[in-house]
Amino acid sequence: MPDDVKIRAAGRADEDALWSMLEPVFRSGDTYAIDPGISRAAALDYWCAAPHRAFIAEAGGEPLGTYFLTPNQQGGGAHVCNCGFVTAPAARGRGLARAMLEHALQAARAAGFRAMQFNFVVETNTRAIAIWSSYGFDVAGRLPGAFRHPEKGFVDALVMYKHL
Amino acid sequence: MPDDVKIRAAGRADEDALWSMLEPVFRSGDTYAIDPGISRAAALDYWCAAPHRAFIAEAGGEPLGTYFLTPNQQGGGAHVCNCGFVTAPAARGRGLARAMLEHALQAARAAGFRAMQFNFVVETNTRAIAIWSSYGFDVAGRLPGAFRHPEKGFVDALVMYKHL
Repeated sequence: MPDDVKIRAAGRADEDALWSMLEPVFRSGDTYAIDPGISRAAALDYWCAAPHRAFIAEAGGEPLGTYFLTPNQQGGGAHVCNCGFVTAPAARGRGLARAMLEHALQAARAAGFRAMQFNFVVETNTRAIAIWSSYGFDVAGRLPGAFRHPEKGFVDALVMYKHL
Repeated sequence: MPDDVKIRAAGRADEDALWSMLEPVFRSGDTYAIDPGISRAAALDYWCAAPHRAFIAEAGGEPLGTYFLTPNQQGGGAHVCNCGFVTAPAARGRGLARAMLEHALQAARAAGFRAMQFNFVVETNTRAIAIWSSYGFDVAGRLPGAFRHPEKGFVDALVMYKHL
């Protein structure tokens, strides 16, 4: 990761930067189970609204990535968190996803979570799966044909899980 | 199932009946990953608000059970549905869960869903697991220690999945 990357909590003033990163990922519809036609307001709400805590990675004022951290369930399931990660297209291959994951694992432990769960990792997103696996995430489940990929048709989605 | 049971879409006029069934289940906190202190308004919103479609089972004006049907994800995941089921305490052991599941499977197929997924079936909820299994649901995933049971401590939750 570039030395000058800072990861911090995102706020209202970051909405343009967040949308610049979320829009291409959501529009492409090949990794997130989100309506590709989602509006900017709904996308920012999905990413940032409580109980989600949104973070932004940047260097020299340039947004490089964003992630959110949230309880995955309420009540008896509130000790397991969930995250979503998006890297800016221009920043791919520079270690941003790993840097954000490390930040997220630390933030999750600090918040008292006991595990992190990814509910829906599309099996064609091999780069993400390789990174999560290298950090000790297990494939806890496989959902057959649960994702309709815009080019590849019905593919599986994985549930990935790591104790903290 | 009693012959006179009717299952129909629930509406505003059913809110008292729905809450009478949801309240004891949510308050007990041993099957749903919902804050046991959830308010009536929040519980009804969780159960009924779009895109959820809520249904009620009743006989002679007495509420016996309720379920909701909803897409489990959006975008490329919107062809898989999710349901939640609650049987009134007084109606347990009378086949209501099976009747509601059959209704839900039919409603899901009619709506064009290709699969049904239960995201979080607490492993101690053996009655539910036996019913879902008997209808062809597979255990697609196991989330280790993902549920903190009020008496049994940390137990697993299952992801169950059935093609329609």
